[in-house]
Formats: sequence, structure tokens, C-alpha cells
Amino acid sequence: MTVTIIGIGLIGGSLALSLKEKGIAASIIGVDKSPAHIQKALDLKLIDRSDTLDQAVKVSDLIFLAVPVDAILEILPRVLDQVKDQVVVDLGSTKSKILEAVRDHPRRGRLVAAHPMAGTEYSGPEAALKDLFKDKTMVLCDVKKSDEDAFEMVENLVDSLQMRSVFMNATEHDVHTAYVSHISHITSFALALTVLEKEKEEGHIFELASGGFESTVRLAKSSPDMWVPVFRQNRENVLDVLEEHIRQLKNMQHLLEKEDYEAFYKLIQRSNRIRKILR
Amino acid sequence: MTVTIIGIGLIGGSLALSLKEKGIAASIIGVDKSPAHIQKALDLKLIDRSDTLDQAVKVSDLIFLAVPVDAILEILPRVLDQVKDQVVVDLGSTKSKILEAVRDHPRRGRLVAAHPMAGTEYSGPEAALKDLFKDKTMVLCDVKKSDEDAFEMVENLVDSLQMRSVFMNATEHDVHTAYVSHISHITSFALALTVLEKEKEEGHIFELASGGFESTVRLAKSSPDMWVPVFRQNRENVLDVLEEHIRQLKNMQHLLEKEDYEAFYKLIQRSNRIRKILR
Repeated sequence: MTVTIIGIGLIGGSLALSLKEKGIAASIIGVDKSPAHIQKALDLKLIDRSDTLDQAVKVSDLIFLAVPVDAILEILPRVLDQVKDQVVVDLGSTKSKILEAVRDHPRRGRLVAAHPMAGTEYSGPEAALKDLFKDKTMVLCDVKKSDEDAFEMVENLVDSLQMRSVFMNATEHDVHTAYVSHISHITSFALALTVLEKEKEEGHIFELASGGFESTVRLAKSSPDMWVPVFRQNRENVLDVLEEHIRQLKNMQHLLEKEDYEAFYKLIQRSNRIRKILR
Repeated sequence: MTVTIIGIGLIGGSLALSLKEKGIAASIIGVDKSPAHIQKALDLKLIDRSDTLDQAVKVSDLIFLAVPVDAILEILPRVLDQVKDQVVVDLGSTKSKILEAVRDHPRRGRLVAAHPMAGTEYSGPEAALKDLFKDKTMVLCDVKKSDEDAFEMVENLVDSLQMRSVFMNATEHDVHTAYVSHISHITSFALALTVLEKEKEEGHIFELASGGFESTVRLAKSSPDMWVPVFRQNRENVLDVLEEHIRQLKNMQHLLEKEDYEAFYKLIQRSNRIRKILR
């Protein structure tokens, strides 16, 4: 079939590689507002050709939106306006605002809202990875609102990509991702700023940076073009978790200040329970 | 030569593996207050035999202290009391308090204060890794206080382990490690507590945990036995950086609250400068 991918960056490009490798897409059309991205995607053979959004939608069986979530809000209604029996999949990291925007759209049934829980801190077509999605989770939201054939097509696709499906409604999705993804980015950005600030005074701080530091800070390389729209659309949930996180940090600060090492010890022991969750 | 390693955990055990592999130690004596650790270390062939601290020190050429920093404070003076021309290396993650404790010791010159910037979130002899130190940084502190032959022996050892040496004084060391190591652990512990707290209410949050979350939270598996003494000894520096980190997080919270996405964007862009530091 013919597939259009709108936004040929890390996610769109990685998807293109998988769709080609699995033999799912006979032809992939790339749509991107950046001519440099299009050229790069052609050079890397992520896409077969490029086209305007409207032309690409017209000739495709399946259309993916892999642009930042503010751009999805803008483009998705326009894509739905033009589809007949095509299937549209948005791959945004937020869901409530996006699904609200097309709730009453007459072609709402053609849309399947999906969020692959996969990514890296890099962006652009050159960041695309062949196995980015393998063994990862695909969250499918409010699937009852999708037409049965559209949902089935996407479910088969998720299987072909060797991903696990998880179903939830848009509200749950946005709460959960605030906790297991959005806050991780916030803390990484803040940690990077903290240390960059200190480096100015002290110099050479980074000579000592080891694996632990790299691990907690690497997400701070992530693009603001992707993340500011996510924080904007999921603002309330992000503020909730940020408040709780600051509360936890202040509690640790308080215990250190009054030198209550016994309580500090218990706190770390409690946080160790994360062992049962992470491999 | 004969080497004693006091504390056969992640660091001591990994060191044992390297010393054997490089042919540096003909015989390794393990000293550990936990009989289970000793047995495990014997089973894993990390050590050749175990002994009491005093006996082991007597027959060794080189003695490493790889126990938590509170235990180093206690044991190090006792070890120095007993050495003649042996070399003693402490591998603690803090330096000021430890070096203060032995500042006027008549055998201070036999001590080389070292901190390998390497580790994982696991502990115990079974966490030992053959190549833990390779290509990592070894910080050597206040080396002017060490006898020349002791320093030379350790410098050769650092070369054999294929590590980079960095020299600094104990005060600088403790400031820098607060920024590039200790705070990373604090944020990870706090993030784990934040999410574990929410999981109680919401359930299933962790189904969506992906690589980004794992990366920022994995340090929360680290042992309180190691980390509480580190935070205790480096309390003032840790409080400094924690205050700055909370300030950065509150600034982000403030910008999100008043929906100043332009300033938020610039903040993330600034934090992206971490790219030039991390590979």
C-alpha cells in the first residue's frame, strides 16, 4: 500500500524504515515543512518521494502524523477533511487536546490515536533508527471511536512492528505519560541547567561526569520544538506531577538540613521499590 | 604482589577482577564484615582467601578501602596505624571528611586518596564487572600529601586499569561530585518516590515506562547503605546543588503556570547546551 508520513523526523523516519523492512509499505511519501528534512529523508532512502500534504493524502491508504503535537492540532482536522476510506494515525505524545479537536469531525472514525512509547533524545531524519519500535509499547487511545476496519489495520500494523498494544482513554494516557515520560524530561532539563550554571563558576565540573550523570541528564538534549508543545497541551498533569516531585525534593532537603539520616535512609529504601518495576 | 581489598562489593569486586586480569595481584585477600559477601566473593573467584583486617594488612603490599564512606572514616585510621611501607588507597565517593580524619596521622604519606568515577546502581560481590573501570576517570586528591613511591604505584595502577587520572584537592572534588554524581542520585530517588506515590492512586502507570523514564530513574535502585553516608559527609555541597536544582524546577513550574511558553522554550534551548558535554 501507499503510506504518507507527515513529519520525517526521529519517529516518522524510524517508522518509514520499519514499514519498508516489513514489506508493509510499497511506497512511502514524505511530507515535511522543512525542505532540508525532505532532502535528507530522500538521501537516507527513508521515503520514496515527497509531495504536498493534500496530494499525498489523496493517493495514500494510510497516513501518519509524526509532527510535534501543536502541529498535529493544526494539521489533523485538515487531513480528516480530505480522507474518504483512508486510515489516519496520529502519533502524538499527548492525546486529550488532539482528540477533543476532532471529536465531532464527520470522519473521526478514520482516525486511530496512537502513541509509541519509544524515542531517543535526538531529532530529525538522521536520528531515525531501524528497530526503534521493536518490543516497545504502543498506546492506543479511545479506540471505540475508530471505525472497526481502521482499528484492525492499525492493530495488525502494531503486531508487524513487534510492539505490545495497551488500550486506554485519552485522559488516562495524559496522566500516565506525565508521570513516566514528561516529568523525566523536565527533571533532565532542570538538572542540565543546574550543572551548566555551576560550571560557569567552577569550571571543569564535567571532567568527572560519569555514567550516572549521563543517564539522568541525557534527555536534556531533547528538542524544545517537540517538548514545549507537549508541556503546553498536558500542562495540568505536568504541573501536578511537578508539584509532587518538588515536594519530594524539598522533603529530602529538609531531612538533610536537620540531619535526620534515619528518615533519609527509609526514604531511599522506599524509592528502591522501583527495582520491582524496572528490569 | 599481595593485595587486600576491604569491602568486596561492586567496586571492590570489580577492582579484584581487573587486578587479577592485568596480572597486578598475585594474591587477593578479601576483608568484609558480611560472611555472605566473603563466601560469594570466594565462589566468584574475586578473592583468593579472606582474613581479619589486621592480619590482611600485615601481609599485603597494597590495601584498598572500598566500603561506604562512613566505614572508611572509621577503618582508615586503624589501617594507617598498622602499615609500615604498604600503600593504602581509599576509594570513597567523598574526600574532605575522610582526609581531614587522617590529616595528622604519622603514616598519612602511605595513603593515596582516589575516587573512580564508575559504578552501577547495583551492589554486592555479584554486581562486580570486569571492565567497570576501563576508560573511566580516576580522581586523585591531595596527591602532594602522599609519599612519592605510594603515588607512583597508584599512578601505574591507574594506567594499567586503562583509566584517566584527574588531580584535584578534596574540597574541589566534593563540590564537583555533588554536581555530577550526588544530585543525579537525589533526583532519581525523588522521581521514583513521585511515581511510586502516583501508582498507588492510578495503577498501571508503569506499563508505559519507556527508555527515557528508565534512564532518569535507574539510579533510584542504588543502595542507601552507600548513599546516606555520602550525602551525610558531603551535606553542604549537596544542599547547595539541591537548592539550585529546586530553584530551576520552580522556575519551570512558574513559567508553565503563567503559560510563558516562549521563556520555557529558551530555557530548554539553554539546557540543550549539555549536548556539547555529553557525547
